[in-house]
Amino acid sequence: MVRVDSPIDSPVLAIVGGGQLARMMEQAAVSLAVPVSLLAEGPDVSAAQVNPTTTVGDYRDLETLRTVASGCAVVTFDHEHVPPEHLRALDAEGHACRPGPHALLYAQDKREMREALTRLGVPCPRWAPVADAAELERFAAAGDGFPVVVKTTRGGYDGKGVWVVDGPEAAADAFATGVPLIAEELVDFRRELSALVARSASGQVAAYPVVESRQENGVCREVIAPAPGLPAERAAEAEMLAMKVAAELDVVGILAVELFETVDGRLLVNELAMRPHNTGHWTMDGAVTGQFENHLRAVLDLPLGSPRARAPYTVMVNILGGEVGRLYDGYPHVMARDPDLKVHLYGKAVKPGRKVGHVTAYGDDVDALLERARHAAAWFEGRRDDEIEDEAQEAARD
Amino acid sequence: MVRVDSPIDSPVLAIVGGGQLARMMEQAAVSLAVPVSLLAEGPDVSAAQVNPTTTVGDYRDLETLRTVASGCAVVTFDHEHVPPEHLRALDAEGHACRPGPHALLYAQDKREMREALTRLGVPCPRWAPVADAAELERFAAAGDGFPVVVKTTRGGYDGKGVWVVDGPEAAADAFATGVPLIAEELVDFRRELSALVARSASGQVAAYPVVESRQENGVCREVIAPAPGLPAERAAEAEMLAMKVAAELDVVGILAVELFETVDGRLLVNELAMRPHNTGHWTMDGAVTGQFENHLRAVLDLPLGSPRARAPYTVMVNILGGEVGRLYDGYPHVMARDPDLKVHLYGKAVKPGRKVGHVTAYGDDVDALLERARHAAAWFEGRRDDEIEDEAQEAARD
Repeated sequence: MVRVDSPIDSPVLAIVGGGQLARMMEQAAVSLAVPVSLLAEGPDVSAAQVNPTTTVGDYRDLETLRTVASGCAVVTFDHEHVPPEHLRALDAEGHACRPGPHALLYAQDKREMREALTRLGVPCPRWAPVADAAELERFAAAGDGFPVVVKTTRGGYDGKGVWVVDGPEAAADAFATGVPLIAEELVDFRRELSALVARSASGQVAAYPVVESRQENGVCREVIAPAPGLPAERAAEAEMLAMKVAAELDVVGILAVELFETVDGRLLVNELAMRPHNTGHWTMDGAVTGQFENHLRAVLDLPLGSPRARAPYTVMVNILGGEVGRLYDGYPHVMARDPDLKVHLYGKAVKPGRKVGHVTAYGDDVDALLERARHAAAWFEGRRDDEIEDEAQEAARD
Repeated sequence: MVRVDSPIDSPVLAIVGGGQLARMMEQAAVSLAVPVSLLAEGPDVSAAQVNPTTTVGDYRDLETLRTVASGCAVVTFDHEHVPPEHLRALDAEGHACRPGPHALLYAQDKREMREALTRLGVPCPRWAPVADAAELERFAAAGDGFPVVVKTTRGGYDGKGVWVVDGPEAAADAFATGVPLIAEELVDFRRELSALVARSASGQVAAYPVVESRQENGVCREVIAPAPGLPAERAAEAEMLAMKVAAELDVVGILAVELFETVDGRLLVNELAMRPHNTGHWTMDGAVTGQFENHLRAVLDLPLGSPRARAPYTVMVNILGGEVGRLYDGYPHVMARDPDLKVHLYGKAVKPGRKVGHVTAYGDDVDALLERARHAAAWFEGRRDDEIEDEAQEAARD
């Protein structure tokens, strides 16, 4: 591996995983002049395209991890999938893994997460482990019956590994995975919220404004910061809940707590993520300190930057892979139409439904911001104005 | 050279020169997913540290330039020193050099610049070429006598190649350079301003708010955006003047027009720079579109982003090399004292007086912003509060 010995002698940070989260961490690391030793899945993945000190290899291989971590006091992550025993080995060899394996466990395993949150008194949907169809039926019968949600405890993301089932037969696919499952009540929610905090190694915590996130087929599609109309006391409750979880689980770096706001006004924790999160991408353009910079500051145990919003509202819309192969061709129209829009592309090959970038707009009027950001994202996806109009009208009817 | 073939098939941009301007262009290129082929002076210079597709070589060598430009439709620059004949050769071979050699000439040669501006009717200090001491005396006698300013027509930067002389004897050093000289009146100025514009290949122009810049020993030290108390009509005059110069000289990319605001209220052009400029670093945190992103958009002939300021005032203070070798050690104090401050370090080895980074603060109160940014810069430079206080008081007396 090539290693840059920085002339300014900053500590080198190891990042495991070469997706867009690592790419945007690297972008933030440029300003801090922190060199990054990257472990990438391939030579041309998103983060490897913009980092000269990349090792290509498998994060499940301890020797590879040792190579990447060599000379690095701190190791952090693009994803939560590194085997905990490898993290414990790196830690024992003097490389601080942040977040550490004891915290990452709760992002890796949904049953562990539910057990920990329940122990901490954090409100969650009603849940139980279910080993077979009979247990699933008992779980449903103990509540309002079917439908209920069934989730694999491990390996799910972006809606994968989650089923809404009408009865035990419908859970056949879930049981067929062979992965341990939990069942959860199907929450009657008004909307989804996300509370994002950065927590440093020595325990400083910064809480970003609580946002509303909108999913499409289980994938984050839009984020509005702050969540419109959220009462101040409920926002504070969500922030304090996220800070409590971060502290109690000893999370270092960014923690995203995804929440349901129920129709009867309660907050229930849906998921935890221990890395910069899609619901925090708006912070790059919309907050004083972006989540990627604060993640770096947190894992390097530097004082955190202000999470304050810079505009009354910031809206982020994901660009998903569509019918257009060359995203660059979207620039002339998108940039000419809206000189105030911020575009972030990840350098990823376009595949249908894959997250390949996001756009951000900020200002006073949420509806106008949504129109601008949706138009741009749709254009990059190869959808044109008539389709965008239809969607906007559909959304307005919802 | 390693070349990343971007999965999204964006055009690759060639950048000649590996200083901090190229580094910050690369940082902006990450969001646009535009791969950069970099020509760097050494393997660990500022921009090379954060770019995986770097060629190390000499920008005065045409073959090296050809290697870097290979596969690139557009070539742009970290500095203005590439020999024009090489640029013409690259251009003829299908690599659009932006800005082009016909424009760069006016940033490379001060006599050519003065002649062009005079021809365009752009107000300049009184000036003349001076071949020897007798011509210098005649120049002085035709005005208010000595002192006058003597400049080399080529090769000067950051105050080098500029002398304020009391008489012809004092110009001996200048004549000894063997470089052609011009003489200029010593302008009685109130302050220095900078008008920054981005101009795209097809002629779209975006003008940033006009800023006040403060020099120290000929080096840019502080910038206040917008220039406090500048009458709207004078700001408009400066913007229009910069747009006119950009159009008439066919500049593509960022053009910085450095101006004197005279004590009797006129604007006189001091210098031109045809690249992102120190007086525009504030835009990274203080404007909707940073100058580095707009430089990329301009040279790639994409529509320009809004140059609008995001806060009433943004202040930038340069970090110059001081007594501290390891800038990273400044973070714990600087970040803890001021969570809203933005820090940009360039990864450069610390040498006395060398530009190694900058800090930015934005808000309503210029004095408070200056105090915050000066404190942080001074801390990175190894100066402590008592010295900073003295300087602030000295500045207040000026």
